[in-house]
Amino acid sequence: MVIRKRLHWFRMLFIWEGSILPQILPRLIALFLLSTAVVIFHGELFRFKIPLTPAPFTLIGLALAIFLGFCNTASYDRYWEARKLWGGLLIDARSLVRQVQTLGDAEKDHKDIREFANLIVAFSYALKHQLRQTDPTADLARLLKPEFAKSLENIKFKPNIILQELGQWIYRNKKENKMDSIVQVAIDSNLNRLSDILGGCERISNTPIPYAYSVVLHRTIYTYCFLLPFGLVDSIGWMTPCIVSFIGYTFIALDAIVTEIEEPFGVEKNDLALNAICRTIEDSLTEMMGDKIDLKPASNPFIID
Amino acid sequence: MVIRKRLHWFRMLFIWEGSILPQILPRLIALFLLSTAVVIFHGELFRFKIPLTPAPFTLIGLALAIFLGFCNTASYDRYWEARKLWGGLLIDARSLVRQVQTLGDAEKDHKDIREFANLIVAFSYALKHQLRQTDPTADLARLLKPEFAKSLENIKFKPNIILQELGQWIYRNKKENKMDSIVQVAIDSNLNRLSDILGGCERISNTPIPYAYSVVLHRTIYTYCFLLPFGLVDSIGWMTPCIVSFIGYTFIALDAIVTEIEEPFGVEKNDLALNAICRTIEDSLTEMMGDKIDLKPASNPFIID
Amino acid sequence: MVIRKRLHWFRMLFIWEGSILPQILPRLIALFLLSTAVVIFHGELFRFKIPLTPAPFTLIGLALAIFLGFCNTASYDRYWEARKLWGGLLIDARSLVRQVQTLGDAEKDHKDIREFANLIVAFSYALKHQLRQTDPTADLARLLKPEFAKSLENIKFKPNIILQELGQWIYRNKKENKMDSIVQVAIDSNLNRLSDILGGCERISNTPIPYAYSVVLHRTIYTYCFLLPFGLVDSIGWMTPCIVSFIGYTFIALDAIVTEIEEPFGVEKNDLALNAICRTIEDSLTEMMGDKIDLKPASNPFIID
Amino acid sequence: MVIRKRLHWFRMLFIWEGSILPQILPRLIALFLLSTAVVIFHGELFRFKIPLTPAPFTLIGLALAIFLGFCNTASYDRYWEARKLWGGLLIDARSLVRQVQTLGDAEKDHKDIREFANLIVAFSYALKHQLRQTDPTADLARLLKPEFAKSLENIKFKPNIILQELGQWIYRNKKENKMDSIVQVAIDSNLNRLSDILGGCERISNTPIPYAYSVVLHRTIYTYCFLLPFGLVDSIGWMTPCIVSFIGYTFIALDAIVTEIEEPFGVEKNDLALNAICRTIEDSLTEMMGDKIDLKPASNPFIID
Amino acid sequence: MVIRKRLHWFRMLFIWEGSILPQILPRLIALFLLSTAVVIFHGELFRFKIPLTPAPFTLIGLALAIFLGFCNTASYDRYWEARKLWGGLLIDARSLVRQVQTLGDAEKDHKDIREFANLIVAFSYALKHQLRQTDPTADLARLLKPEFAKSLENIKFKPNIILQELGQWIYRNKKENKMDSIVQVAIDSNLNRLSDILGGCERISNTPIPYAYSVVLHRTIYTYCFLLPFGLVDSIGWMTPCIVSFIGYTFIALDAIVTEIEEPFGVEKNDLALNAICRTIEDSLTEMMGDKIDLKPASNPFIID
Repeated sequence: MVIRKRLHWFRMLFIWEGSILPQILPRLIALFLLSTAVVIFHGELFRFKIPLTPAPFTLIGLALAIFLGFCNTASYDRYWEARKLWGGLLIDARSLVRQVQTLGDAEKDHKDIREFANLIVAFSYALKHQLRQTDPTADLARLLKPEFAKSLENIKFKPNIILQELGQWIYRNKKENKMDSIVQVAIDSNLNRLSDILGGCERISNTPIPYAYSVVLHRTIYTYCFLLPFGLVDSIGWMTPCIVSFIGYTFIALDAIVTEIEEPFGVEKNDLALNAICRTIEDSLTEMMGDKIDLKPASNPFIID
Repeated sequence: MVIRKRLHWFRMLFIWEGSILPQILPRLIALFLLSTAVVIFHGELFRFKIPLTPAPFTLIGLALAIFLGFCNTASYDRYWEARKLWGGLLIDARSLVRQVQTLGDAEKDHKDIREFANLIVAFSYALKHQLRQTDPTADLARLLKPEFAKSLENIKFKPNIILQELGQWIYRNKKENKMDSIVQVAIDSNLNRLSDILGGCERISNTPIPYAYSVVLHRTIYTYCFLLPFGLVDSIGWMTPCIVSFIGYTFIALDAIVTEIEEPFGVEKNDLALNAICRTIEDSLTEMMGDKIDLKPASNPFIID
Repeated sequence: MVIRKRLHWFRMLFIWEGSILPQILPRLIALFLLSTAVVIFHGELFRFKIPLTPAPFTLIGLALAIFLGFCNTASYDRYWEARKLWGGLLIDARSLVRQVQTLGDAEKDHKDIREFANLIVAFSYALKHQLRQTDPTADLARLLKPEFAKSLENIKFKPNIILQELGQWIYRNKKENKMDSIVQVAIDSNLNRLSDILGGCERISNTPIPYAYSVVLHRTIYTYCFLLPFGLVDSIGWMTPCIVSFIGYTFIALDAIVTEIEEPFGVEKNDLALNAICRTIEDSLTEMMGDKIDLKPASNPFIID
Repeated sequence: MVIRKRLHWFRMLFIWEGSILPQILPRLIALFLLSTAVVIFHGELFRFKIPLTPAPFTLIGLALAIFLGFCNTASYDRYWEARKLWGGLLIDARSLVRQVQTLGDAEKDHKDIREFANLIVAFSYALKHQLRQTDPTADLARLLKPEFAKSLENIKFKPNIILQELGQWIYRNKKENKMDSIVQVAIDSNLNRLSDILGGCERISNTPIPYAYSVVLHRTIYTYCFLLPFGLVDSIGWMTPCIVSFIGYTFIALDAIVTEIEEPFGVEKNDLALNAICRTIEDSLTEMMGDKIDLKPASNPFIID
Repeated sequence: MVIRKRLHWFRMLFIWEGSILPQILPRLIALFLLSTAVVIFHGELFRFKIPLTPAPFTLIGLALAIFLGFCNTASYDRYWEARKLWGGLLIDARSLVRQVQTLGDAEKDHKDIREFANLIVAFSYALKHQLRQTDPTADLARLLKPEFAKSLENIKFKPNIILQELGQWIYRNKKENKMDSIVQVAIDSNLNRLSDILGGCERISNTPIPYAYSVVLHRTIYTYCFLLPFGLVDSIGWMTPCIVSFIGYTFIALDAIVTEIEEPFGVEKNDLALNAICRTIEDSLTEMMGDKIDLKPASNPFIID
């Protein structure tokens, strides 16, 4: 959980790191150079005057607004739903540990509960690795019993099998008469919620916004921007490169942000800080088990983790 | 679950397969030819000058924006709700198998549970076939007991009867004292969720966006596009065909995408990959039953399945 | 559940039945005649020139866009929520019958369950009749026991009393020891959902979009349309009647659609097919009782039922 | 529950009662007079020509659209959520009475259940009075036992204490062995929903849309409207007063509607008909208790009650 | 819960306190001075004429509308979700106390229940202090047992550990046979809801709107505003400073509001009144315990608390 201090509005105008500018700068420079050339040649291409006015751009702008507005909202919804799912993971992890510690009236076995908590933490890390397509072996080996960690190696849907193991844990407790059916079902309903979270993340990860949207959006934005100097040069003359770069900046930056947050489980600057959330889950459960945790906050707020 | 690698923005400008362009190309060519004719005849039709300016198009554009924006959002909501329902099917399938494997304290009968899992997989395939109006016989024969598969032949709402059979399965287990009422009700509440998914898919499939919207939207878009050259020819001259085709491309492409995703259960390029989801459900339950599955990913990401 | 085959985009341009055009044609003709008169008199009214330009229409258009966009979204949300509630009715009807057939471990009395299923079907028909303010007597007489159907005659909230009778059914079963408290409560929670559906439909039916919106929207649309020819005649001359009729068509059509779907329980062309849904519920429960149903689909997809 | 018959579109143009017009007429007259003065003095103020054109108004219009669109949506969401909460109150009231009548297998005490139903009705009235800050004494005296009604006098959160009394009712029944824990908890979960409704209404009532929005919106609308004649007088001359009043009408009317429905629990024309809903709850529960109710509908549909 | 009386529309135009104006005044004055200079120098900068027209601003306005509209909606959604979570805290607090007072059939220990209620109130205060990063020691010392308050000092996630203690309370009651499993689980499900509220608040607090949005939005707004006088000076002359300040006011004010409510847990004027909500929770539970509370309302409605 990365905490970013809010900047003063004035400083924010000149920030470099954390902004989307570095990434899109080459495109903006190309746009600026084209505009300058258009100004120098008075909008002529091989002595043919390109007869454009601002009017058609207002009409194109309409379609662009619908596309950009929609893709932006849809991407942000994906981003925010992904964040909610991972927030739900933290919530459920805590609820599950609280439940195994306090439901029923049997004496509680601290070591057994720690195993249960470790399974939940392992579930979080396994989910993170599945979504980022990285190797979970180290994290799983640290948290799980060797034989179970070993058996996960050839498994495709690892978090799901860990979830099944959580079910086995309550089954063992039920068999040993440490809980009755009512308590078992109450805990199981929180396992269902973990299943919801897993399936929700897989859905966002596997189903992008329909591909055709992105293609049409890209084409519209770039055609619009590279035609724009021809449309403005007759009315605003040598200001064309500045204004075109500025308009280009807003559209291309929005497009770049949309592309980043559309897949919120990546490791780009504006993606979700999954590592930080996994550590928060681990810390929070550690505290609930009565152990000390490290209280100092994360260092660099711009490092997505 | 189809995973598409994200393309570089520049390559995306020139992609052919996977874009909506091939489908709408004839209309765009017609639009281009009309615009060229308008340029050649200076906007005259049988020597009558059509006296149009860009101004009315701004006014029409307003209505168009409301229609297109609305239809686009409504279609995407249907698409995404459909995807959520099928994601929920995967979630519930796993939860149900976990529940029959771990709830209660009775010894678990592996073969009996496999029958239960097969019923769930059959439910998925039957739902897919119902939504696509294809023949489910082969899939059902593979997964169900012969007599039950046979009895489904004259059934209209097949997934619903399979769901009833899942209920019969827990009824038998309860009668054999393998679970108590509490466990039975907990499993039954996940059957209710399968019922929700079934009903939700039927609702999306059977109730399109009110027909009048599509009619008015189509008429507005095509009238707009085919009047546009007359409005632009006086101000932008020989650029008219390019600009009109470009504006036409954005509107007609958006309209085509909206038409495709409005019915998300079809087999067009931007529809949902129901086959892939059915296979994922089958694979996931197979793993939970302790069996091996094929780990290699799907081959061609553009084949909707 | 009415299934409409998707039309080719080109055929859709010239469709008559199923479109909103027949209904608004008189208004469009009036608009066309007015525009023609304006062209003939060069925008003068009793020799006074009306000095309008397109500029004010852009400003009015802004308010119009907010109003129309909002009323459209709000109406469609009502329509879609109503559809979801009726979809939920189908879902719950099936879930309830499945529950009384498979929960607990008592022997099931087929005839008693059929009575329960009939009560649910009667609930659907009674709700439909209440929402459409039609007479439910025939449907209720067909489905309910004579004395109970008789007792409903002087009842204002009929579906609610049928719901109470469903509760009495499980009360009788509990008293006869055919189910325990756990099963009874599980079934009762689906009766709560029927209560939600009933209340949701009543809410949509009894609380329209605040009246003031419709009044202002109507006034804005018609004033806008009937002033428009004066604003366009100076720039587009004899094209004014065509363009004004076209713009008028888009706005007035949208307004007419909004008015229709705002009250989704009516019997107009774009309203919900409540009869078809009631029949689907009846068919689906009949199948679950093990009886045959008629498999042929509904005939005319444009008849709202 | 007020039922308004839908008016013909033409009659709606000239309606007076039920529209927002009477309320904003003085402001529109002021706007009309100002515009007339501007026309007479040719846009000069003390011989200084105010050099405005329509262009800046398009730019301001953008901000105005964002503000108005947002405030309108946010207000309507509050209104509709409030309506849903009160609809939920009717739903829950019925569900609770059905539950105490039919859950468990004990003999039902009609008089005791009537007391329970009266508590629910009293909850509705107490909530209405709390939201409208009116005196609930008469309604509570009519419905509650004298000593309990008396004890509520010095209570700040009256509906909450009535809810607690509903809890005490099921506690007494449980103690007298008329229900088991399972039934008690099932009824209690509907009491939780009443608590949700109470808290939801308090939230809407106590937290308006952030104040700064309303201030900026008001300032933008009125500055816009009173500058508008100076911008239009040069292009549309003596039509200025008509057009300015018309544009002013749309914006000021929308603003007035937004202000009314933002606080949906008031007694203005477009607010919620809380009295009618309370009566519906009372009628519906009376019917469920087997008593007769008055079947004739409410008289004047424009009286918010 | 702060109740603000609605102001007359006319008074609202001239309000100072409670508006966003004081905060953004310096920026508006800078904008006014720049515009005045532009008018004086006829849009020349060091004798170079800046050749701008209103046309490019319409194009930029499009991107601005998408950005501002989106950021505004996203911020308000965060604000309103935060408010719902805190409203849910009040709801759950009451439900939990009602449940421990009325579920089951054991005799109720008033002192024990007061301890439970105090834990809930402490949870509220601890959450408030965590979100505002203030010191909770005083509030916790007042409400909790000394040894437990002491043990919380080195805890990072204090509300979560208080929630665990609430779980321990029901565990102790279960062990002492004051409740059965069913009642325990019913209360526990409301503890799960407290966990949801805690996690939801942490999510909003720790995950701002992706940083890149704010940066691009700020840059677009300020570049737009400071270029605007050059674009308007040729058409509206000496009115430029007034109009530019007015347009700048709307955009900068909206941006300032968005920045404030994006982080709804702060102590700025438009943030949530967390202190007031905490007091309401405490008052409401006090009343439920049968004690008197102070009935007079909060004094200054503009003091966010």
